[in-house]
Amino acid sequence: MADIPTAAISRLVTYLRILETLEAQEIDRTSSSDLAERAGVTAFQVRKDLAYFGRFGTRGMGYTVPLLKRELVRVLGLNQTWNVVIVGMGRLGQAIANYPGASDYRFQYVGLFDVAPELMGREVRGLNIRHMDTLRDFVAAQAQGQQRVDMGFVAVPPDRAQDAAQALVDAGVRGILNFAPIVLQPRTSEMSGQQEIGDEWRGVIVENVDFLAGMKRLAFYILNPHLRVTDTEENE
Amino acid sequence: MADIPTAAISRLVTYLRILETLEAQEIDRTSSSDLAERAGVTAFQVRKDLAYFGRFGTRGMGYTVPLLKRELVRVLGLNQTWNVVIVGMGRLGQAIANYPGASDYRFQYVGLFDVAPELMGREVRGLNIRHMDTLRDFVAAQAQGQQRVDMGFVAVPPDRAQDAAQALVDAGVRGILNFAPIVLQPRTSEMSGQQEIGDEWRGVIVENVDFLAGMKRLAFYILNPHLRVTDTEENE
Repeated sequence: MADIPTAAISRLVTYLRILETLEAQEIDRTSSSDLAERAGVTAFQVRKDLAYFGRFGTRGMGYTVPLLKRELVRVLGLNQTWNVVIVGMGRLGQAIANYPGASDYRFQYVGLFDVAPELMGREVRGLNIRHMDTLRDFVAAQAQGQQRVDMGFVAVPPDRAQDAAQALVDAGVRGILNFAPIVLQPRTSEMSGQQEIGDEWRGVIVENVDFLAGMKRLAFYILNPHLRVTDTEENE
Repeated sequence: MADIPTAAISRLVTYLRILETLEAQEIDRTSSSDLAERAGVTAFQVRKDLAYFGRFGTRGMGYTVPLLKRELVRVLGLNQTWNVVIVGMGRLGQAIANYPGASDYRFQYVGLFDVAPELMGREVRGLNIRHMDTLRDFVAAQAQGQQRVDMGFVAVPPDRAQDAAQALVDAGVRGILNFAPIVLQPRTSEMSGQQEIGDEWRGVIVENVDFLAGMKRLAFYILNPHLRVTDTEENE
């Protein structure tokens, strides 16, 4: 398989979102140019992005919305269950736990963690909030019960995000979704040399969701309404 | 100015975030290769992205963290005040209003809106939640008071997001940050032909922040740990 640009993965997610919107509107057929217009890219880009993963649709006939949606769900691994713990159950963690649609995709919250005494034991979506000190044992117990924790969501204040991520990785969680507005560093906090990458971080995948990133991009585009922007990048 | 890829704008936001992290760690100097490693791109890409906006740093000497940060803040328009209204003050809207760091960048919440009777008048960050029916008058009054509403954040459930965005645009708000997991369509809901773009949407800028997008990307990367991904895209 050819190298796949990370931006193509982000666009696949956008196409899937568009297909869901079409499905909700009971629109049954689409085309690369229709998808392109809705996603703000070129039709060529849509066809190229999809071609990384197989042959979808019929030349000249476009795509059947439910079929293409099902294929993208499969490509993205959203037809399988993902067990998730959330670290940080303040407003943000609670908003995440209650965000509509996550359960459509079999993201399954199995544990909620925080350190605030007033949150301990509180029930959110049928789970009781637990103390961070119990995270490692919890993840180990889940693994023994064949309910391996696949992802940890970091929803703590920025100054605690690195430690929260480290605790997840130390507990054996291999996928981190970081909601805090900092760039996580795969470094052990215990090492004096900040440049050392901790072994426990090898193979860990970190993705970032940043509220402020969206605000900043929006500020830029409002400030530069006449700037020519493009969705394709030149070759290096 | 050359065409600027939208992905470059997203990367600028990432570089800024890295510079903030470095500043917090009291690291005063960085280089394109250091920024590149932390952002997961090539040093060439960093230099190219920055070159769209001017000359920063000294050849062979790298960058001074606070200076480069200040330049990126200026490029992104974050040195000016942005007046924001939030539509949807459930858990998500409240999490956004309380998200740490927004006020660092002079994003200033001036109005909070919802339709739920139990939320009316409730105070969040010093503002009382208002009814959506008053949005248009509120935006008009702000404009007369020289406090033009620059951005509207859509934080309502997915099935209400299109209407909320339409209400913002009808009220004259020109920048929309959409937190709902749907693709907003710049179409007037009142027109029978769904393909008509409403005039009121011309020039409106929509950016999306999607919790689920991050989860989906993470699922893909966990599912494909050995896939070769790249941060650069081939030319079309």
